[in-house]
Amino acid sequence: MQSSPVIIPLDVPKDKRKKYLHNYELVTHRTGRLMLLAGDQKVEHLNDDFYGESIASDDNNPEHLFRIANKARIGAFATQLGLIARYGMDYPKIPYIVKLNAKTNLVKTMQKDPQSSLWYKVEEIERFQKNSDLHIAGVGYTIYLGSEYESDMLHQAACLTYWAHQYGMLSIIWGYARGRAVKNEKDAHLIAGAAGVAACLGADFVKVNHPHAENSATALKEAVAAAGRTKLICAGGKEENAQTFFQTLHDQLHIANTSGSATGRNIHQRPLDEAIRFTNAIASLTFDAVSVTEAMRIYHE
Amino acid sequence: MQSSPVIIPLDVPKDKRKKYLHNYELVTHRTGRLMLLAGDQKVEHLNDDFYGESIASDDNNPEHLFRIANKARIGAFATQLGLIARYGMDYPKIPYIVKLNAKTNLVKTMQKDPQSSLWYKVEEIERFQKNSDLHIAGVGYTIYLGSEYESDMLHQAACLTYWAHQYGMLSIIWGYARGRAVKNEKDAHLIAGAAGVAACLGADFVKVNHPHAENSATALKEAVAAAGRTKLICAGGKEENAQTFFQTLHDQLHIANTSGSATGRNIHQRPLDEAIRFTNAIASLTFDAVSVTEAMRIYHE
Amino acid sequence: MQSSPVIIPLDVPKDKRKKYLHNYELVTHRTGRLMLLAGDQKVEHLNDDFYGESIASDDNNPEHLFRIANKARIGAFATQLGLIARYGMDYPKIPYIVKLNAKTNLVKTMQKDPQSSLWYKVEEIERFQKNSDLHIAGVGYTIYLGSEYESDMLHQAACLTYWAHQYGMLSIIWGYARGRAVKNEKDAHLIAGAAGVAACLGADFVKVNHPHAENSATALKEAVAAAGRTKLICAGGKEENAQTFFQTLHDQLHIANTSGSATGRNIHQRPLDEAIRFTNAIASLTFDAVSVTEAMRIYHE
Amino acid sequence: MQSSPVIIPLDVPKDKRKKYLHNYELVTHRTGRLMLLAGDQKVEHLNDDFYGESIASDDNNPEHLFRIANKARIGAFATQLGLIARYGMDYPKIPYIVKLNAKTNLVKTMQKDPQSSLWYKVEEIERFQKNSDLHIAGVGYTIYLGSEYESDMLHQAACLTYWAHQYGMLSIIWGYARGRAVKNEKDAHLIAGAAGVAACLGADFVKVNHPHAENSATALKEAVAAAGRTKLICAGGKEENAQTFFQTLHDQLHIANTSGSATGRNIHQRPLDEAIRFTNAIASLTFDAVSVTEAMRIYHE
Amino acid sequence: MQSSPVIIPLDVPKDKRKKYLHNYELVTHRTGRLMLLAGDQKVEHLNDDFYGESIASDDNNPEHLFRIANKARIGAFATQLGLIARYGMDYPKIPYIVKLNAKTNLVKTMQKDPQSSLWYKVEEIERFQKNSDLHIAGVGYTIYLGSEYESDMLHQAACLTYWAHQYGMLSIIWGYARGRAVKNEKDAHLIAGAAGVAACLGADFVKVNHPHAENSATALKEAVAAAGRTKLICAGGKEENAQTFFQTLHDQLHIANTSGSATGRNIHQRPLDEAIRFTNAIASLTFDAVSVTEAMRIYHE
Repeated sequence: MQSSPVIIPLDVPKDKRKKYLHNYELVTHRTGRLMLLAGDQKVEHLNDDFYGESIASDDNNPEHLFRIANKARIGAFATQLGLIARYGMDYPKIPYIVKLNAKTNLVKTMQKDPQSSLWYKVEEIERFQKNSDLHIAGVGYTIYLGSEYESDMLHQAACLTYWAHQYGMLSIIWGYARGRAVKNEKDAHLIAGAAGVAACLGADFVKVNHPHAENSATALKEAVAAAGRTKLICAGGKEENAQTFFQTLHDQLHIANTSGSATGRNIHQRPLDEAIRFTNAIASLTFDAVSVTEAMRIYHE
Repeated sequence: MQSSPVIIPLDVPKDKRKKYLHNYELVTHRTGRLMLLAGDQKVEHLNDDFYGESIASDDNNPEHLFRIANKARIGAFATQLGLIARYGMDYPKIPYIVKLNAKTNLVKTMQKDPQSSLWYKVEEIERFQKNSDLHIAGVGYTIYLGSEYESDMLHQAACLTYWAHQYGMLSIIWGYARGRAVKNEKDAHLIAGAAGVAACLGADFVKVNHPHAENSATALKEAVAAAGRTKLICAGGKEENAQTFFQTLHDQLHIANTSGSATGRNIHQRPLDEAIRFTNAIASLTFDAVSVTEAMRIYHE
Repeated sequence: MQSSPVIIPLDVPKDKRKKYLHNYELVTHRTGRLMLLAGDQKVEHLNDDFYGESIASDDNNPEHLFRIANKARIGAFATQLGLIARYGMDYPKIPYIVKLNAKTNLVKTMQKDPQSSLWYKVEEIERFQKNSDLHIAGVGYTIYLGSEYESDMLHQAACLTYWAHQYGMLSIIWGYARGRAVKNEKDAHLIAGAAGVAACLGADFVKVNHPHAENSATALKEAVAAAGRTKLICAGGKEENAQTFFQTLHDQLHIANTSGSATGRNIHQRPLDEAIRFTNAIASLTFDAVSVTEAMRIYHE
Repeated sequence: MQSSPVIIPLDVPKDKRKKYLHNYELVTHRTGRLMLLAGDQKVEHLNDDFYGESIASDDNNPEHLFRIANKARIGAFATQLGLIARYGMDYPKIPYIVKLNAKTNLVKTMQKDPQSSLWYKVEEIERFQKNSDLHIAGVGYTIYLGSEYESDMLHQAACLTYWAHQYGMLSIIWGYARGRAVKNEKDAHLIAGAAGVAACLGADFVKVNHPHAENSATALKEAVAAAGRTKLICAGGKEENAQTFFQTLHDQLHIANTSGSATGRNIHQRPLDEAIRFTNAIASLTFDAVSVTEAMRIYHE
Repeated sequence: MQSSPVIIPLDVPKDKRKKYLHNYELVTHRTGRLMLLAGDQKVEHLNDDFYGESIASDDNNPEHLFRIANKARIGAFATQLGLIARYGMDYPKIPYIVKLNAKTNLVKTMQKDPQSSLWYKVEEIERFQKNSDLHIAGVGYTIYLGSEYESDMLHQAACLTYWAHQYGMLSIIWGYARGRAVKNEKDAHLIAGAAGVAACLGADFVKVNHPHAENSATALKEAVAAAGRTKLICAGGKEENAQTFFQTLHDQLHIANTSGSATGRNIHQRPLDEAIRFTNAIASLTFDAVSVTEAMRIYHE
């Protein structure tokens, strides 16, 4: 993967530029692309993603996520601070992204628009990083544009990005449109809007939904462009089978020119060994620009 | 009771690790299991749990709780700071958990979703500990997942856990699902979700409801696993008789592999002497892994 | 009146214990009982209590309250800071309790549940005390349990008590049940609940409503017990005539074993001279445990 | 006008007493009475008061207010900081009161109860005073008693008064009853209630509505008494003609014994020269206790 | 363009007067008039303004805005901090205005009144300015008068202006009337009200809507006068064609005597080269007071 030089944003103080660059290169493997193991669902979806008929029994143990992140090739593992604090001593080599807000799925949009608040100040994450000596490469935050609580979340996301940069850390925004006012969350034009908002917020990466559209990878181009120098990453499609999943990701990377992927359930619901191989296939698609055929070979290795 | 070594979370600063370990061992009796005398109901249930036909007359005096905690074998006594400040000078040996939020039972969920706010910052508890020389081993907090106020409580619980650890204190989360959006608070899968959230919040212990299920101890296994390194404790069943209560607890400990118990009304609604014996029986079940028969013997001693 | 030694709560720092003790003895006259001249109604009831047909014309001048507090025998005079700041220079001997929250009676519960917020931080009261050299013995706060805003008020009441004690001042909680969820504010069991909450908040004194019950003084016993070491004070009955009022108070003190009284309108709606004699009678009932006959004598003196 | 000595409230620190006294005397001309040029309507009523058929064309220029304040005899000119910061350099001799909250008239009470929030901390006003060298004699704030947002406004008004006094500045409360719960905003008894609340808040002056009543000046007596040492000022009546307006003010001052007046539209909607003469007439009525006839002479001078 | 000397507001500290003056002259080209390239729509309108049938394909890249701002003659470029931080290193000569609040267009007024919150404190912008060495000439903020959230926005706008001035930066208020209570947002009298509010807030410039009226430039005079020393700028009309657009702007400047213009979509939806020429024409109309014919010549150059 060829990579253009990293553009360090100007809210990173001069004496933190080196640290920022280090974090950026750590999670992108110097490719400019990010492969994110997204592991924040224990709050977002409670235990629905971790226990059930089609889910590997390994997955109900939170450590499963750390085992994957430790053994597989990833850019960074995004999860809540509580888990990192409890397992990090056994997995010190993983690059972590601390997800700073979360909500459960119990209250539905029809009852109340989504509201998800900051759990910690970035300063507390910096303090944690210093005390733990872990690789806390950045922080993450979800905004729900179109929610009646949008203004709180925009404020928190802007602040958090500013302060992450002040400390030389990355900021990753999960940018979704959701709320009673939102008719089609997967509309490509709306997704482009969310990508543009993340750019205005100063995010280094924005994770958006894969659009529902006939040529979805083509439709995604609008969002990649709208994000500008903020790099756009995207989940793979719904997992029907690995081949389709990898093809969708390959199209995102090569047709839409996305800068990587964020995958959660599709990875951790598999047994450890398979999860690692699946992750490695995604990593090769992302970092090495391999073909889908090569990805399938890695997965079945 | 054999015990695995305590895993000190990484948000405990290096110079507070010894204090954290001391607090952990103090309340677990070095068994890895916690036996909590839960005494926060004077706010949660007003005087309903302390005065009435089937309640020992001793119980209407707040000191009753301290007398039990003082004479019986317990892990820790959880109650509000106001009571600890007023009685602690006479009961300096009790290990205390300061319960940091509370609400009354007057406003029902049908009127408004549950909302329970932090009474103090952890810093104020640390200050109190230093001034009082009491054993303040940790802090407690109740979250209501599925409440429309969930985001406030998640934020407070995350912060409180972080700062408890900063000061070398434990964090215990009472994790319940409650709100208009919640159909079945005692669903085993939902309880597992709450346990997982507590793990993400970084709690040392999570107190959950005993599930309503045919094989409730078996059903509880999902939650114990989902909590990972956060230890799960559970109330005994509704008190029909001591034998049933102890059996339920024994099953939790040995079938579901829970890490202890939190008991309130079942203890303090008894006269002092009986309450002490009942508590001791729970303590032996929890710390010594005795049989139900042995527990009954202790209770009737 | 015999008095047991004062139990200084443990949130009073060691170097403030003397000051706390001084304040406690000042307002209790070393009897363990408090006689409170409650003068916060100019906000709570606007001018309804101060001007009207059956109200002495003296009462519409705020100074009337200070004149009574100055000439009569009282434990302390509770009112807002603004009045104390404006009249205190002429009445420097009065022991004051600064009432820290207040609301008007315009918005009724049927429109919106009661909400009453802190006007000042305790730190500002401490600063005022130092600058004014007045006897600011403590602070007061009203909580409305069962209000939808209960969580804010519980938080403020807990903090305010903690910080009052940090500065060696007393905390007095007006503990009422009120809100759409509350069917009977004067229910003895509910009043006991409020008393228990005040104990959990760490209040030195809790002022509750006199219960509506056949044997109201007997019914009040539950609350006195539930309050534990937090001392319970109570308003006298509705003023039909002085004899009945004194009898009610006498019963509270000697049957229910309350620790004093808080009286407002029944005092200040009388002309100055009569108000002073009426106050002195209450003071003798409270501090000297005199009979109702003796109280009547003092009143008619 | 004879004047009793100024009673300096006890929340004014000893080293600010001189400054407070200076400010008090500055705005009262050592008469104990205040004549306020109220110029906060550009927010409160948007441009309705400044532009229209019966309004002098001078009035649409904000400088009109400063020209009047500069040339006419006034106690103080109350307006927003933004205007003072922009025009003050050309009008350095005017005594200013900074109005610290404001709302527009767009949202009507039937839609939502009035809510008006603090724009600045008093500390920021103090900082402004020091930097500008202007005569910032005090601060002003409007409370709407009976609004569902009353508790926020009471808190802010109490704090602002306390801190104004800490810095040696005056506090003037505009005390109105307004909200869905308020049936008659101009009821004399309710106005007396608002006056009493301002006294409890510690205000130096309270500006109330002129009551709707048959003998309105007599009806106002209740409020003047209820305000105690807090001085009550009042708007003149609706301007039908100057004679009636002056008579109403004269009655307020001499029958109700108010301590001055606050006039806005009745002044500034006139052309500059007439506005100055009208203001001077009010000033003479207020400060010199002249007759209505004399006031008319000044006005027509 | 002749220019009157700049009046530096008194909330600018003495040691920041030079910096304020520099910023003022920088964005006004010493003409007293401002030409603002308004580029905050990526949040306000999501991607609707940047991608679509009649929009140049250049516009979907956020850098398009910077390219225009860099090559064209402008007063200042207003956009969000995130974009400035990401592109500023390549465009260091542009004078920037950091827009400090923003909301999306998803939630419509009929669902909820507009609410838009501060993203950063001015102190954080000052810190950014120092670290980046960019020309951050000032900050911007949108208020929605007539919204139920008006009080929050008035508070934030007042504070932000005060603190911008404390740091020697300019404050620009976008002053709109919007909310369920507002019937006609483009009413000239209401626009004048918004202009007056901005003056009270202390803004240096207020950007208002162009009124809907028969003689709209004449109708705008009321607002220009109401704003006083706060300078009023206005968007050009809807773009039907350049000639009409320039004529509208020319009328605003010369009939209504506005102090400049703020243009966004009409500029950036054109291809780069045309956008630059269009911007230059606006700049000449604004700064050089050229005729419409001359503006057309520049545009077609």
